Amino acid sequence: DFPLVLERLDAGEIVIGDGGFVFALEKRGYVKAGPWTPEAAAEHPEAVRQLHREFLRAGANVMQTFTFYASDDKLENRGNKLTFTGAQINEAACDLAREVANEGDGLVAGGVSQTPSYLSCKSEIDVKAIFKKQLDVFIKKNVDFLIAEYFEHVEEAEWAVQVLKETGKPVAASLCIGPQGDLHGVSPGECAVRLVKAGAQIVGINCHFDPMTCVKTVKMMKDGVEKAGLKAHYMVQPLAYHTPDCGCQGFIDLPEFPFALEPRILSRWDMHKYAREAYNAGIRFIGGCCGFEPYHIRAVAEELAPERGFLPAASEKHGNWGAGLEMHTKPWVRARARRDYWENLKPASGRPLCPSMSAPDSWGVTKGHTELMQQKEATTQDQLKVLFDKSKSH
Amino acid sequence: DFPLVLERLDAGEIVIGDGGFVFALEKRGYVKAGPWTPEAAAEHPEAVRQLHREFLRAGANVMQTFTFYASDDKLENRGNKLTFTGAQINEAACDLAREVANEGDGLVAGGVSQTPSYLSCKSEIDVKAIFKKQLDVFIKKNVDFLIAEYFEHVEEAEWAVQVLKETGKPVAASLCIGPQGDLHGVSPGECAVRLVKAGAQIVGINCHFDPMTCVKTVKMMKDGVEKAGLKAHYMVQPLAYHTPDCGCQGFIDLPEFPFALEPRILSRWDMHKYAREAYNAGIRFIGGCCGFEPYHIRAVAEELAPERGFLPAASEKHGNWGAGLEMHTKPWVRARARRDYWENLKPASGRPLCPSMSAPDSWGVTKGHTELMQQKEATTQDQLKVLFDKSKSH
Amino acid sequence: DFPLVLERLDAGEIVIGDGGFVFALEKRGYVKAGPWTPEAAAEHPEAVRQLHREFLRAGANVMQTFTFYASDDKLENRGNKLTFTGAQINEAACDLAREVANEGDGLVAGGVSQTPSYLSCKSEIDVKAIFKKQLDVFIKKNVDFLIAEYFEHVEEAEWAVQVLKETGKPVAASLCIGPQGDLHGVSPGECAVRLVKAGAQIVGINCHFDPMTCVKTVKMMKDGVEKAGLKAHYMVQPLAYHTPDCGCQGFIDLPEFPFALEPRILSRWDMHKYAREAYNAGIRFIGGCCGFEPYHIRAVAEELAPERGFLPAASEKHGNWGAGLEMHTKPWVRARARRDYWENLKPASGRPLCPSMSAPDSWGVTKGHTELMQQKEATTQDQLKVLFDKSKSH
Amino acid sequence: DFPLVLERLDAGEIVIGDGGFVFALEKRGYVKAGPWTPEAAAEHPEAVRQLHREFLRAGANVMQTFTFYASDDKLENRGNKLTFTGAQINEAACDLAREVANEGDGLVAGGVSQTPSYLSCKSEIDVKAIFKKQLDVFIKKNVDFLIAEYFEHVEEAEWAVQVLKETGKPVAASLCIGPQGDLHGVSPGECAVRLVKAGAQIVGINCHFDPMTCVKTVKMMKDGVEKAGLKAHYMVQPLAYHTPDCGCQGFIDLPEFPFALEPRILSRWDMHKYAREAYNAGIRFIGGCCGFEPYHIRAVAEELAPERGFLPAASEKHGNWGAGLEMHTKPWVRARARRDYWENLKPASGRPLCPSMSAPDSWGVTKGHTELMQQKEATTQDQLKVLFDKSKSH
Repeated sequence: DFPLVLERLDAGEIVIGDGGFVFALEKRGYVKAGPWTPEAAAEHPEAVRQLHREFLRAGANVMQTFTFYASDDKLENRGNKLTFTGAQINEAACDLAREVANEGDGLVAGGVSQTPSYLSCKSEIDVKAIFKKQLDVFIKKNVDFLIAEYFEHVEEAEWAVQVLKETGKPVAASLCIGPQGDLHGVSPGECAVRLVKAGAQIVGINCHFDPMTCVKTVKMMKDGVEKAGLKAHYMVQPLAYHTPDCGCQGFIDLPEFPFALEPRILSRWDMHKYAREAYNAGIRFIGGCCGFEPYHIRAVAEELAPERGFLPAASEKHGNWGAGLEMHTKPWVRARARRDYWENLKPASGRPLCPSMSAPDSWGVTKGHTELMQQKEATTQDQLKVLFDKSKSH
Repeated sequence: DFPLVLERLDAGEIVIGDGGFVFALEKRGYVKAGPWTPEAAAEHPEAVRQLHREFLRAGANVMQTFTFYASDDKLENRGNKLTFTGAQINEAACDLAREVANEGDGLVAGGVSQTPSYLSCKSEIDVKAIFKKQLDVFIKKNVDFLIAEYFEHVEEAEWAVQVLKETGKPVAASLCIGPQGDLHGVSPGECAVRLVKAGAQIVGINCHFDPMTCVKTVKMMKDGVEKAGLKAHYMVQPLAYHTPDCGCQGFIDLPEFPFALEPRILSRWDMHKYAREAYNAGIRFIGGCCGFEPYHIRAVAEELAPERGFLPAASEKHGNWGAGLEMHTKPWVRARARRDYWENLKPASGRPLCPSMSAPDSWGVTKGHTELMQQKEATTQDQLKVLFDKSKSH
Repeated sequence: DFPLVLERLDAGEIVIGDGGFVFALEKRGYVKAGPWTPEAAAEHPEAVRQLHREFLRAGANVMQTFTFYASDDKLENRGNKLTFTGAQINEAACDLAREVANEGDGLVAGGVSQTPSYLSCKSEIDVKAIFKKQLDVFIKKNVDFLIAEYFEHVEEAEWAVQVLKETGKPVAASLCIGPQGDLHGVSPGECAVRLVKAGAQIVGINCHFDPMTCVKTVKMMKDGVEKAGLKAHYMVQPLAYHTPDCGCQGFIDLPEFPFALEPRILSRWDMHKYAREAYNAGIRFIGGCCGFEPYHIRAVAEELAPERGFLPAASEKHGNWGAGLEMHTKPWVRARARRDYWENLKPASGRPLCPSMSAPDSWGVTKGHTELMQQKEATTQDQLKVLFDKSKSH
Repeated sequence: DFPLVLERLDAGEIVIGDGGFVFALEKRGYVKAGPWTPEAAAEHPEAVRQLHREFLRAGANVMQTFTFYASDDKLENRGNKLTFTGAQINEAACDLAREVANEGDGLVAGGVSQTPSYLSCKSEIDVKAIFKKQLDVFIKKNVDFLIAEYFEHVEEAEWAVQVLKETGKPVAASLCIGPQGDLHGVSPGECAVRLVKAGAQIVGINCHFDPMTCVKTVKMMKDGVEKAGLKAHYMVQPLAYHTPDCGCQGFIDLPEFPFALEPRILSRWDMHKYAREAYNAGIRFIGGCCGFEPYHIRAVAEELAPERGFLPAASEKHGNWGAGLEMHTKPWVRARARRDYWENLKPASGRPLCPSMSAPDSWGVTKGHTELMQQKEATTQDQLKVLFDKSKSH
């Protein structure tokens, strides 16, 4: 019957991931930037369902449960008061993903991500218990496979993989690091080896950097795995933002994060290049993360249509390389209905008072630093003042 | 009972419009760029309903029927084969707008826009008949008021107003022109006077230019109306794209239109400035057009919250000036939870190989030019070749 | 015998001006930015002579005496202590210009410019006396013609022209204004008419704006003169800096003035476009001001070589459109030895953290404002503090 | 008596180099871009002498003979017909450097640079004979020390050092490479070790990259030398152009080279940062190459005035951090007479249609490639056509 993720990848098929829920739903009014928690799954299921549908229609094969940062320690962090329990949110998210997956050939992937507990130096046992709680819901709801994603420290990702692995479900593991490696300085190649050894069948990168940087980093992971004589499938789910100026912490350090990233948004044509580059690098699980809207995933599916053998449903509203423009009223816009026009265009920012690159913040703090400690209480004004001052003198 | 649009404006209240449906739904996979027709109202009502809800939640008072370019001559243009009739599309759009309006205090506005018939030099009688067909649906569905929007030639807008006016419903009229005036060279001030004389109670600008340019143009209209000793309310529904480099035809002429406008997208902070500027200019119907996503409308509603006395529902997922960042895990991001940070930031484009402004196409053709003639048949490859060559030598 | 400036212009010949001495000599270490006074003529004659020679060699027909700001009231302003008298400086400048002019077919032009006295509201009689002192030297040294240049207020320029006119020498008058007119709001057209009526045979623009803006302003002057039924010759001597972002006070208001203008410097190819545009506008006295180095003037002379019938001496070290590159060792650089390469290139700034435009200072103060008053004593630290604070809060 | 270069460096003193003669004199009209040969030393001695004087006045301790590319094989390359022999040019250059050096405390350095012979795969004996011919003049004219500079291949530089070393004069060796190493892939650290072993007492980098990149590369050289247990002095003479986008061949590969580099020119404030960074890196011979004008060298000397104990002569026309602006007439310009203003300014390019970075040409050809072969005859039109076509398809 229905082939699951490893069967597809083993057969050399392309598996297209979905885009970024937290950023898309933040813009639609259902997610709060700061906590970034996914209570909308329980609170506004119609909004989450609609976004799943749009990605399915755009060509995504994977419906990832909207459970990013849905661990209990994160849901309760810094005064984030929610009216739903962690279990309710995780269950609702599974139901929505499954409902829409069943409308097409979608696979449901249950996802866990990095925890404030780890950054606060909690023990391996405590951190693993956090993952286990989400996992219990995923098993009850019978997701098709599991993704441990958005880890800045490979050690925490290994712990997550070890927990997920016990279920017998296929496990994918994806770090949010760049070519410089994880925040403890472990190289991408070594990270990949450790994740494979921990039990992940699919390894790769998501978030924090732009598509080309993420593909480059996955290549380094693949090199590492191959040099170690191991085998794996590879995944990439990058940002839809250009980040030529990022340091090792990625776009979090950019002064524009998270409310002024607009000028950096990739066009659909940038996505064509990304999809081709990822495919040529031997990556077969190709999706997106923050910033990816349905039309970005559609562009990935359109670029890879020759390999996949079909166009996604939403291409009926597009046409190859924007061929819909042949119907435009203005003749000079009809003149843009061709591939070489869009491939060669260097789009202007429309912002003559703005630079093209930023100097990223680089406070250089990570796991264990006081200011990174988890706290249940809301950040106080006094705590903020210290940060504001530090930022000014910075 | 429930105050309608003129009662609100007469009382000095702010009326917030919604954002741009064709561009938002194009990115979601339901509208085809080129024809830009709104068949999604009948084809994918769940997607249109969801977008209405997001704008309502973001603070919009007006649910504009998704009937842009839903005139029969446009629905059939250049090989655009649709499985729904014009009447079906217009009716479905009215039902969706009313359904969501009733979930809050929303007003339903039935909208008509410029026609290929006018550009093809059809007679006044023919063009008016086009508007009349859409209007019959609006009356049957009992919309609250009418908007004639997106007209490049004031003459066609006057014809539309004259038709709409016969219904007795309040009429708003909005041109897509800039400070240089309409495409026949009529100044904004004179355009406004002619629209008021034709019967419009609300006049203004939508689309084609960025917020500050549109506000500037509405000011010129207001000056014209006041100098003529007339009275009107004013509206503005600009692009959410920066367009410092546009000529008289606006963003259509930009090389980036419509598929590479990303770097020009306004941030929410740009929208705060826009809302304040519009309010200070005496404009009280303040909304958005192409590029406006729900979070842009929310920013308008947040800026004007002191005047309106309340925040929109979606602000529960935002906080004033991004205060939600107080809950962010990373301390340097918490340090961004303040107004002056975002007000003074000049966001980088992340595109070091791209310029900040473009040289717009300026073919200088409009009403009556051969290449603008309406045709039912699809554009042929030969017709395209002529345009491609013209574009290259351009 | 030797044709003088009016004879050449009457014959329809092109007269090429020289470039900007104060800026070029500031970079060479002989002029102090701030006072901008020309004591180098007496102090370091070898440096001034060499620069004259370079402009002559580059194709300039006019050797302008290095007497900018050499009026006594300016030489003594704000603590500028000089070891030479005004008379010594003016005389030395005349001798140097004549010496080099005699090495070719150069004409010597004696120049006066705006005075601190005018800005400090001194009387017409006082201001005219200032001009008269410089003029006495020019007559003694028998310059070929006179230029009243760099006036922000047409009234002061008229006074200068009236004084110069009494000598019987040909008089050129050149304002440092843009399309918005002089600092009292007099339009370029009206300014030109007033200058012609005051006795100037040549009128135009120098400094403060980039070449295309200056040419545009001279066109407005020409229109004004022709509409008034008068006749004149036209001159233009613009900046060699791009100034798309300037207000009415020109580049003085740019935050980069005067020590960070480098990214704005025009290339030689920009100069080709300028020379052609100026010629097409009917301007025949075409030169440069601040920022113009010898190679910029050479580019003007090369562009106009077909009309003039010869190349300048310095072109022996260039070749048409950079043909010298045919001798370059690297093949990809030889591939740049062609006109279309340079004509179409859009040069990068190499500064990814910098914007493409600036927000100009616009203090909006001019003649008569306290802070503009002339003073002999050095600016005190207390006076500076007031300005620094004003600038910060700005 | 008078301390020479090694005595000064051994004593820990700063030795300031001069700037770039070929680029400065190209703009003044005396050097032809393409061949870049220094015949001006014999042809227009007054222009070369004046430039030496400006650098001396700006604070330079070293008068480098204007003998770059003055080897006979280069003087005769590709149809470059000169009226002076190589010996005449080299002799004239030595005389000019000595004449000006004697006007202050200047040292005369005789310079040789890379040869077309090496790129054309001539033998070690042939290449060394080329260097020997220039050297004979330097010895006859008794220069103070020798510089082998602008080598892209460390092997050729070693040959040059071996030849120079035989004279007993101090030898400095400077490569035009970046952090990626020489064009055969030898790392900066290894290059430095080889140069020291060949006999150079001073090693470093000149040309091809911007100041910060060159300093970074010299640091890598220093690391290499120290790890090898050797000792040397270090020198740096970078471009005055920002080159963030260069590959291993440096600015030659930039599309803007050599005629549209203007927007990349460093400001004097950039030079302050450079001088401090170089000093902090332990470099004591600090100068400039292409693009460095006298005011750039003055900025280096002003930044290092506290360490040197004096300001250069030309600072009398500047003032610390532009203090001369205290004398400016306009108050908002006086408000710029302070260090923090200029240190924090990010200058705009004034070019809104231009990007901030370029995609460099990267033909990837070097020593031995057909198109790099030396030829005495002028490049033919047929040869050029091949290059133009290659460039277009590129």
